[in-house]
Amino acid sequence: MTAAEEVPGALATPEVPLNAPLVRRLLASFIADEVGKTGATRVVLGLSGGVDSSLAAALAAQALGAGNVLGVKMPYRTSSADSLQHADLVAERFGIETMTVEISPQIDAYFERFPDASASRRGNKMARERMTILYDQSARTGGLVLGTSNKTELLLGYGTLYGDMASAVNPLGDLYKVQVWDLSRAIGVPLTVVDKPPTADLWVGQTDESELGFSYPDVDRLLYAMIDLRYGRDELVAAGFAQAFVDAVALKVQRSQFKRRLPVIAKLSRRTIDRDFRYARDWGL
Amino acid sequence: MTAAEEVPGALATPEVPLNAPLVRRLLASFIADEVGKTGATRVVLGLSGGVDSSLAAALAAQALGAGNVLGVKMPYRTSSADSLQHADLVAERFGIETMTVEISPQIDAYFERFPDASASRRGNKMARERMTILYDQSARTGGLVLGTSNKTELLLGYGTLYGDMASAVNPLGDLYKVQVWDLSRAIGVPLTVVDKPPTADLWVGQTDESELGFSYPDVDRLLYAMIDLRYGRDELVAAGFAQAFVDAVALKVQRSQFKRRLPVIAKLSRRTIDRDFRYARDWGL
Repeated sequence: MTAAEEVPGALATPEVPLNAPLVRRLLASFIADEVGKTGATRVVLGLSGGVDSSLAAALAAQALGAGNVLGVKMPYRTSSADSLQHADLVAERFGIETMTVEISPQIDAYFERFPDASASRRGNKMARERMTILYDQSARTGGLVLGTSNKTELLLGYGTLYGDMASAVNPLGDLYKVQVWDLSRAIGVPLTVVDKPPTADLWVGQTDESELGFSYPDVDRLLYAMIDLRYGRDELVAAGFAQAFVDAVALKVQRSQFKRRLPVIAKLSRRTIDRDFRYARDWGL
Repeated sequence: MTAAEEVPGALATPEVPLNAPLVRRLLASFIADEVGKTGATRVVLGLSGGVDSSLAAALAAQALGAGNVLGVKMPYRTSSADSLQHADLVAERFGIETMTVEISPQIDAYFERFPDASASRRGNKMARERMTILYDQSARTGGLVLGTSNKTELLLGYGTLYGDMASAVNPLGDLYKVQVWDLSRAIGVPLTVVDKPPTADLWVGQTDESELGFSYPDVDRLLYAMIDLRYGRDELVAAGFAQAFVDAVALKVQRSQFKRRLPVIAKLSRRTIDRDFRYARDWGL
């Protein structure tokens, strides 16, 4: 019997739930535990001025103390001035230290060789350059790299593999974007940051929702029903989602699976890394 | 009953086996299958002049045709001239195309800000810069990024996370270094490349074996017994490995487990990425 048969008539469209006080406590403990068991006391993260990194910074400040959080601003020439101002606003609100490392010289030096490179190639190179800087600042300061990718981005593959998707510990990866918004309001992220249109700011005028072709509230309700509640295609349509929307999003989730996996290793031996040999990250600690 | 009890007296030290003709066929099929099912026909890889990338290039040329393999040479100012010559020698031997992208301008632009950075920070930044270039060349050419990390490096954590350890598909990840050498000889990698001392060439005079403090033949026999044959500590000592060597290597394997895992995501929902939600890379293809 399918869920559609259990509930006669149209299914109610499920809303994405959030118990903000509980989740805030859980995520602060998660950060404290995961950082602490590696022997580290600090984190570094990219502070973009967007809501995801602002929330991650706030949670880390709560978990580790503001003095143990380093926010790195990594603007490119074309990055919006608002982004930097918002990053400063967030750093001030939560009392965390920041530093600025320009990425323009590195990026421009590379693309001199490839002047016709598309905006998407440039954007991915920038996202990866920022990752390399965070890992270098991690080595410099002994802080773990804190990830800021949310569940919506991770499921849609809307991020750069080995760029913004790379980190040591990610407190936001099981929160949909609408949950990030709700939790950010609850924890006191400045409302100018929470309420502005989300953008990766990789080129002028970019916004997530125009690039994706749908809004976060719409896709989050769909993903929540599809992934968390395991509604099938017919059930999603019965719940009021347009069939073409369901199919387009399901395809995005499938096609981006490679971004959520480690490199595939050819299996030859009895114990192959990530197949038979796959202990937890904190194995033996 | 332990293995030590089954075999009275000292255990024979196991040799690391390799059926070169079989493994060569298996790895060529693996590359053809994994690349083909993404819809790609090509690969790109970093060609360092070392034995690992030379073997990966040879296998890819066999699997896809030499015309579908792009070897990217990415020297830094201090890279050895031999490395570049050896890369050319290998490209010529297997008929693959190469291109050169210097990394000095990008690396130097960054470290102007951090002139006191250690050799290890510089080396890791270089390894990550090379990854970003390979992924950009992947976007430019439509070729998948072919990984070249071997099992010895992966188990010891002797590589850069999100640098040389990052790829789409890795044919060598289940081969110990001594097996890479044997297979490279069998497939015709030039002997100057196979027989030279392995080095990441991240600084002048670096060699793997002096940095690690033991030889590849020694550590590979130990890892093979420890990981593949699941010998315990006492059994390894009974098989002739020095206890301090066993403990040092076991610790390296454990301490580097984080490099063989995805970022840890805080679990909040019923279906969390890489926990309950972890399909194969080719799910739905």
